[in-house]
This record gives sequence, structure tokens and C-alpha cells, in this order.
Amino acid sequence: MVASEIRALFAVASRPEVVSLAGGMPNLSALPLDAVADTFARLVARHGAQALQYGPGQGDTMLREQVAGILMPLVGVHAHPDDVVVTVGSQQALDLVTRVLCDPGDVVVAEAPSYVGALSVFAAYQARVVHVPMDGHGLDADALEATLSELAADGVRPKLLYTVPSFHNPAGVTQDADRRARVLDVCRRHGVPVLEDDPYALLGFDGTVPQALRAQDEDCVVYLGSFSKTFAPGLRVGWAVAPHGIREKLVLAAEASVLCPPAISQMAVSAYLHEHPWLEQVKVFRELYRERRDALLDAMATSLPDGTTWTEPAGGFYSWVTLPDGLDATVMLPRAVTARVAYVPGTAFYAGAAKPMGRRSLRLSYCYPDPDRIREGVRRLAGVVRDELELVHTFGSVQADGRHDDSTADVPGPETA
Amino acid sequence: MVASEIRALFAVASRPEVVSLAGGMPNLSALPLDAVADTFARLVARHGAQALQYGPGQGDTMLREQVAGILMPLVGVHAHPDDVVVTVGSQQALDLVTRVLCDPGDVVVAEAPSYVGALSVFAAYQARVVHVPMDGHGLDADALEATLSELAADGVRPKLLYTVPSFHNPAGVTQDADRRARVLDVCRRHGVPVLEDDPYALLGFDGTVPQALRAQDEDCVVYLGSFSKTFAPGLRVGWAVAPHGIREKLVLAAEASVLCPPAISQMAVSAYLHEHPWLEQVKVFRELYRERRDALLDAMATSLPDGTTWTEPAGGFYSWVTLPDGLDATVMLPRAVTARVAYVPGTAFYAGAAKPMGRRSLRLSYCYPDPDRIREGVRRLAGVVRDELELVHTFGSVQADGRHDDSTADVPGPETA
Repeated sequence: MVASEIRALFAVASRPEVVSLAGGMPNLSALPLDAVADTFARLVARHGAQALQYGPGQGDTMLREQVAGILMPLVGVHAHPDDVVVTVGSQQALDLVTRVLCDPGDVVVAEAPSYVGALSVFAAYQARVVHVPMDGHGLDADALEATLSELAADGVRPKLLYTVPSFHNPAGVTQDADRRARVLDVCRRHGVPVLEDDPYALLGFDGTVPQALRAQDEDCVVYLGSFSKTFAPGLRVGWAVAPHGIREKLVLAAEASVLCPPAISQMAVSAYLHEHPWLEQVKVFRELYRERRDALLDAMATSLPDGTTWTEPAGGFYSWVTLPDGLDATVMLPRAVTARVAYVPGTAFYAGAAKPMGRRSLRLSYCYPDPDRIREGVRRLAGVVRDELELVHTFGSVQADGRHDDSTADVPGPETA
Repeated sequence: MVASEIRALFAVASRPEVVSLAGGMPNLSALPLDAVADTFARLVARHGAQALQYGPGQGDTMLREQVAGILMPLVGVHAHPDDVVVTVGSQQALDLVTRVLCDPGDVVVAEAPSYVGALSVFAAYQARVVHVPMDGHGLDADALEATLSELAADGVRPKLLYTVPSFHNPAGVTQDADRRARVLDVCRRHGVPVLEDDPYALLGFDGTVPQALRAQDEDCVVYLGSFSKTFAPGLRVGWAVAPHGIREKLVLAAEASVLCPPAISQMAVSAYLHEHPWLEQVKVFRELYRERRDALLDAMATSLPDGTTWTEPAGGFYSWVTLPDGLDATVMLPRAVTARVAYVPGTAFYAGAAKPMGRRSLRLSYCYPDPDRIREGVRRLAGVVRDELELVHTFGSVQADGRHDDSTADVPGPETA
């Protein structure tokens, strides 16, 4: 199982001597804990009867107003508070949208590679994932057109396209405005709803925020957002903005699933947004991640051997690294952990039978460790890659089952620099 | 839709002039808000880096130890912390267990009547609910045996039996030790897992806590518990204790569904259990609910007309009222709300085609209003029932579609006093 692999990996990677470039945990070191503590204390003391009680299944009314209020100026999404469904992190929104739209055996189209948590949801609902390649500007619109046409020729209309258009997890690439327009155009013509997962939108390092796909089309796009990367993931507060018919079903599904999201978390976010300059806090986070992104890119350029390529993220948490021909990131992982550096192998980001497509790739997260640790981690990783290369040059490539193999499959994925 | 009916009802019933005996909101008036506020403030200030971060998908390690530690002395359940899966309220545990055990079309056996939130989950997963009657000691074991035998004769083995053995929602009855043994024996012989939903166990008015079904059988029973009724529902902290094979699947399903439950809520419960005499707090809640139960029973005995019967709950939040022959609680509801009293009609607690079985019944919740308001609410309800009776004596019974009808179907349900 993908999730159990990742869990085992986290267990090993959490040992203090290992530099983990694996996990996607936001870095909370810049969060003013005393201010957050005050917010919670005031909230419970003054409004505990509400904050500790069941709340509306669709989410706290005030918070939905605030979310609607920030969406237009930031990502260009016009939303009425009634359009917003608050969820237990945007992971639950992924779960509920899939529950509402997909039956077992239905087809979901997703980028190659895709966020592992989304793939877990699609697997849980027994959807069949069809991957579409990406390039340096994210999802390849021509390939999407070709895939949807092929599926249509077979009488298959996918229930949704899953995409992370901005600062992609795991690929580290971003769709530009032209690409977004073309992706939307393809989906509209084929009648395929878009599930736009946008947790990193505010973390662009040049300070600009890409306009959401939903800003261009309210009928075709379900938009997911989250406070996990711009405030705190431990609160589990995300949201969906959905066309009316889907949104009503989402609320019913949310109520069946958890009755209501935690009132305490929602009201704490709401109070914090009122009491503190949250967008200034986001800027602090952005700077923190930019510094770490720079450390990662510098270290990779300095130490990774020729033939290794990677994406250069303009925001978010991740770079996607493709190893030299003949190497296998999954096979290499135990050796990397022995060398005290951890990453997530590319196979985790492909569904089922497509997993081998991720063999030559891996995801590096720069969000959590300090810049010095990131540089040290990349140095260790570079040593492992060089050792692997030497092995391959001597014996041919090494497969997961230990057999030697000197052929290497084509590796679709984001174009790397 | 059941959920939307309930939502509309809550909207009306939330008007201040209406005495709501409809909602099941715990009464938090006895919770020491300043102490809870201090717990949150200390938690965030000292351990914010963990409390605001992602946590384990199975739940906070310390909290799982504490839950395992309270289960044995209180409800007789032997559990290792590894056996405990923390969920977003026990509603999410219901959702995940059903997801793991049921495919569309599978049969679930449930009491008649059953908790409406469980029926919503079974409907969401397209399970077919087969109801089994109750009597004054809860689920009727002979009827369960007959139902499972009939299903077996048709080649159907239900995927689970759903039961609330203690202080039943909505029926207000409790299985005694003998009944529990017989229910377990029937389920074991038919190979049907038991889903034991036990949120009210600590709220028995004589201070004794019924031993859980799972105390007698660890292999056959999935046990669900919650802090919603003994601490605060707004935190959304519940749990499942499950046999090993199911538990592993529950953790994977939980991760796909929400990644992890809110760390802040779990650590706040954990800290509160450490810092405060939680069981003393439970005693305060118990007294508060006992006083309200007494007010309800006194008022019903004083004012409800002959031919009305009800259960006398020994704990929990609810009494199940059966109206005199010829009355329909769903038809009567708008008139009750006009008379400024609200309840949930019995039909809400039966699945699909079985809904008419609940027509003569209704659920009264005494958990939230003050005793004086409860007495006033019952007086108003009694007036409405008397008016309905007069109408029936004049014109014959009134059906939902407005047609007159003087026949009344048998109404299976808990035996009423």
C-alpha cells in the first residue's frame, strides 16, 4: 500500500540523524505561538459555548464569509459564502468530491505525477486513474486533449480532471495563464469537471498569486483551498468552492462523514484572521520557503552529478528530480536512508500499474529543514547518486527485484531543467 | 433527504421562542470554560509546534494511551493503545468502518429505530438496511436470530450489525447483561461483525456504567467511543477500537479521508485529562442530564393524554414517545412548531422504505434545555397531541397526504411504559 510505504518511510526518516527531504510538513517556526495561544484562550473563555459545540455541517458562517472575502482579491475566485464548504483540511474536500462524483470503476484523469493523497482517495473509491503527462508549464494540454479524445472514442467520459495548477506537488511546476485557458477549454469541450487543488497558491516566491482556474469558469471547476500551508495544518481547516448542484451534495456527504468540522479550529482561524495581519504572516512563510528553495537549488547545482535534472519551483514546497539514465529511485532509497538522507520515490505519485513511470524520479521537499540541513542532505544524496552511477556503469542498471537490466523505460513527467 | 429535513427543522427550532426537544446537542453549561481556555493557551504556547502540525493518521499517541487506559475500568474493554484509532468524532468512525466493511448493495442490520447519522452513512455507501425490532431491553435477540436466519436462507450475510446498546439514541433503552450476551451469541453464530456505538456509556443516572459488548468479544466487535458527550463535541474527538485486520484498514481509510485528525483537539483533550478531574466533570454532566430526564418524565406523566407511551431512559439524552393510535408525528410536526415546541419525528430513524414504521413515534431530547423549559415544552406538546386526538375522533386519522384513514399500521419499536 502506498500509504503504509510512506508511513514506514516517515518512521525511519524521523530519526534525528536523517535529513528528511521527504515529508511535506509546513514549517511553523515563523508562527507567533503566543499570539495563537491568546487567540485560543480568548475564544474558549468568551465563546466556548459555541466553539466547543457542534456547528453547521457546511462550516462556520463567519469563516465562510472570510474565505469568500479573500478568494477574489487573491486568486480571482468570485464566491458567495453559501458557495463555500469548510472541510477537515482540503484532504477531506478531495474525499467528499470524489465520493459525490465517482462510482467504482469510473475514470479520473490526473497529472503524471500526482499528489499521493489524492491518489489514495481515488483508490479508496475504486476509481481508475488515467495519467496525463506534464511539461515545464504543468499539465500538457495537448496530451490532455489526446487522452480525453481516446477515452471518448472508447465511450468513456472521466468523472473529473484532478490538477494542482500552482506550485505543483510533487512536480514543482506551475501552469501559466495560457496553459490554464487551454486546459479549461479542453475540459469544457469534453464535459469533464475540473477538481482544482490549490493549497500553495499564496506561496509564490515573487509575491504574485496565480489566478485560479475557477476564476475563469464557475460552472466547470471545483476549487479546493486550505489554511494548512498559510496558517497551521494541525487545525485541519480547508474548503471547497463548488457549483451549486455539487455543493449541496458535498454538504450532505460532509454531514454523513463527520457531522461538522471542528468548531474550535474554524473559530480560531476566523478569530486569528480578524485579530492579526494574516497576509503579513503569509509573507513571512513565503520568505522562509524561498530561502529554503534557494538552498536546495544551489546545493543541487553544486553537487548532483551530470545527468541528474530537476524542476525549479517558483513557489510551494517541492522539486521533482530525475536521476541519470539507469538509476531507480525506489531501489536507491534504502541506501539513501543509510547515508542519512530521505526523499519520497517517484513511484508513490503514480497510480497502480503506472507506478513504474516514477522509477527514475524522486520528490525533494525543502519546506521543513533549515537551509544548512538542506545543503547537507543534498550533499549526502549526491554521494548516493554517484555511488549508484558507478554501480550502473560497472554492472548495468539495477531493478527493484535485484535483477540487472540495462534498458530504461521512457519517463513521462515534468520537463526538468 | 433525511439530513436536509433535519437541517430545515433545526433552522425553525433554533428560533428562541421555540422549545426545542429536537436537537441532541450536549449541554456545555457545566463545563469550566476558563480551565479549558487555560489548557488551550498552555498547549499552544508550549507545544504549538506539535499541536498545530500534522500528526499521526491513527491519532495522537498519548491520547490513544489515555483512551486505552480509561476503557478497561469504565466499560471493561481491554485495548492496547495500538488498537485505538482516533477519529473526527465517532461519526467519522461510523463512516470509516462502513467504508471498510461495506460495498454498494451489501446488507447492514440495524435496530428499529436507529441513530439518524448512522443511517446517513449506510445510505452514503449504498448499503441496504434491514431493521430489527427492539423492546424495553433494546435490540430483540430473538428477532435478530430470526432476521439473520431469513437472510442466510436467502444467501445473504450482513456485513455488520449496528447497535447502540446503552442509553439508546433515539429509543432511550439499554441492553441488560443477559441481552448483550444473547445478541453477541446470535452474531457470532451467523458470522456477523458487531458495530457497537457507545457515546453515552458514562451517562447512566445511577452512576453505573454498562459493560461494553466488546468486553465479551474482541474478535467480533468494533467499539466506538467519543468525548463529544463527556467533554465537548466541538473538538470532534472520537475513537474506534477494532480487531487487528479491520483496524489496519481503518487507519488507511482515515489517512485517505482527512490525513490525520486535528492535533490541536486531540492534544487539548489529552492535556485536559491530565490536568483536570475529568471523571468528576462527567459526574456533573450526569447530574445535569438526570435532572432534565426527571423533568421530562414528570411533565409527560402529568400532561400527555392517555394512549401516549414513552420509554424511561436510565441514562443518555433521549426518550422515545409513541402517540395514541391514529396520530402521525410527521404530520403533527408543523403544528407543534406553530405551538412553539420541536421534536424529531420517528420516521427520521428508519431507513428508506421502512420510514412509515416511525410515523406514530417521535424522539424527545432533554439534554439541552433547562428543566423549566422542558416542562413548558411538554405542556405545549401535550396541547398539540390533544388537539390532534380531537381531530382524529371527529374525522379519523390524518395521513401525510391529507387523506383520511382510520386504519393504523402496527408500529414495531421499543416497548414503551
